[in-house]
Amino acid sequence: MITSTANQKIRRIAVWQSKARERRRDGIYLAEGVKMFREAPREAVREVYLTENLQKKLMEDPELRERLQELPCETVSEEVFARMSDTQTPQGILTVLRRPEYALEALLEEKNPLFLVLEDLQDPGNLGTILRTGEGAGVTGVILSEGTVDIFNPKVIRATMGSVYRVPFLCVPDLGQAIGELRRAGVRVYAAHLEGERYYDSFSFQGGTAFLIGNEGSGLRRETARLADAYVKIPMEGQVESLNAAVAASLLMYEVHRQRKQKGGERR
Amino acid sequence: MITSTANQKIRRIAVWQSKARERRRDGIYLAEGVKMFREAPREAVREVYLTENLQKKLMEDPELRERLQELPCETVSEEVFARMSDTQTPQGILTVLRRPEYALEALLEEKNPLFLVLEDLQDPGNLGTILRTGEGAGVTGVILSEGTVDIFNPKVIRATMGSVYRVPFLCVPDLGQAIGELRRAGVRVYAAHLEGERYYDSFSFQGGTAFLIGNEGSGLRRETARLADAYVKIPMEGQVESLNAAVAASLLMYEVHRQRKQKGGERR
Repeated sequence: MITSTANQKIRRIAVWQSKARERRRDGIYLAEGVKMFREAPREAVREVYLTENLQKKLMEDPELRERLQELPCETVSEEVFARMSDTQTPQGILTVLRRPEYALEALLEEKNPLFLVLEDLQDPGNLGTILRTGEGAGVTGVILSEGTVDIFNPKVIRATMGSVYRVPFLCVPDLGQAIGELRRAGVRVYAAHLEGERYYDSFSFQGGTAFLIGNEGSGLRRETARLADAYVKIPMEGQVESLNAAVAASLLMYEVHRQRKQKGGERR
Repeated sequence: MITSTANQKIRRIAVWQSKARERRRDGIYLAEGVKMFREAPREAVREVYLTENLQKKLMEDPELRERLQELPCETVSEEVFARMSDTQTPQGILTVLRRPEYALEALLEEKNPLFLVLEDLQDPGNLGTILRTGEGAGVTGVILSEGTVDIFNPKVIRATMGSVYRVPFLCVPDLGQAIGELRRAGVRVYAAHLEGERYYDSFSFQGGTAFLIGNEGSGLRRETARLADAYVKIPMEGQVESLNAAVAASLLMYEVHRQRKQKGGERR
């Protein structure tokens, strides 16, 4: 059991918690909590740290016991865990994972794919929620501009509720180029835009579809919006100027899901 | 100009920022930022504090100048403002407002009203986002259980982006009683529930409608869900167990909006 916060491994975790650059250099990310441990893809898990108390509790669950026995786990004292954790009330388990790598080309092989393209989103909760809702709505993948908050930020990981393990994503240096690739593959690209002339539910999203979602404060850059095939607008009553970015993305993704479900005859 | 953080008024603001009980006792709430100042209902504004720098800037805007001249404003030093503010990068203006009071009876006079009923929501961002989206979707009002996060929490206020000024809300001691009132007034009550048997888009929401939304972690209490006329389910692909509460509420509210808009022939 590790009992000293001066331990090399513990100090490295603390650095990873706070420094995106260090996480990137080492090709890893951190996921806290029991749910994130339970759902982690085994082949990607590099290290697991947990408190003795939690270990005893988790060993009572057959599935978790097997995981704990197979994966490289190390127990730490409560005090040490508090030092490693990014949360105020830590659950007592932290998983270190190797980063996944996805290729747009492979994602484009899906029939009638559904993409979200995020430009410079800043709020970790929004990005995490978009991945979570994205899995629920059945997106093919999420494409992030370089200016978007680090997807491996601990707050983002937490807000995904495990969807980060299952929703493919790509961080691209040139959003315009990625949008070009989508369009060449026959994907229709829609910009979520306040200047849209048609409401989101008046389009047919049966074919390959991508939505461009802009920064929380300033929306899409003009030069990015211009790359879209069409602008879509979400109607707003009252004096609302815009919706929260995760809410707007969710409404669009679920409109696609609703339309495709109806078409597929799976409506209940 | 107030330059001392020991000033009585400043100390009172700091207490209001952190203590829900003190805000309630004094019947006030705080709203930070220029947008919140600009949109504040004049008759509810009790005090305004701002930095000299910001004051100079705002005086250039005719509409804001008029507000600043008519409302009881006081300038404070940057240092004092940092002490009053709940944010890390304060904009430099804080408005103290009298709390509004709404009656369910009056809200029920609206034809085909749309209500959200929130049980024990804990996340300030979620509650704020629900009010913001609620205004966008045209809700009649939001009903909160006593166990829900304080709607006058500064983080909630900020996340509403001004909608807290315009969306009627009620905090009720007995959620069951409020649901009973809704039903007696002919409002159909739907519980957002994982055990729902029908998808949300298979209902007709033309008449009076209310959605019950439960706590982020544990969902609706069984005894609350039981009071609903029907359970609605949002379809979820992959391994997603539930959606974020604000996202679920947004999808439901906008489905109502979509259906009513189509019926009304306002679809574009």
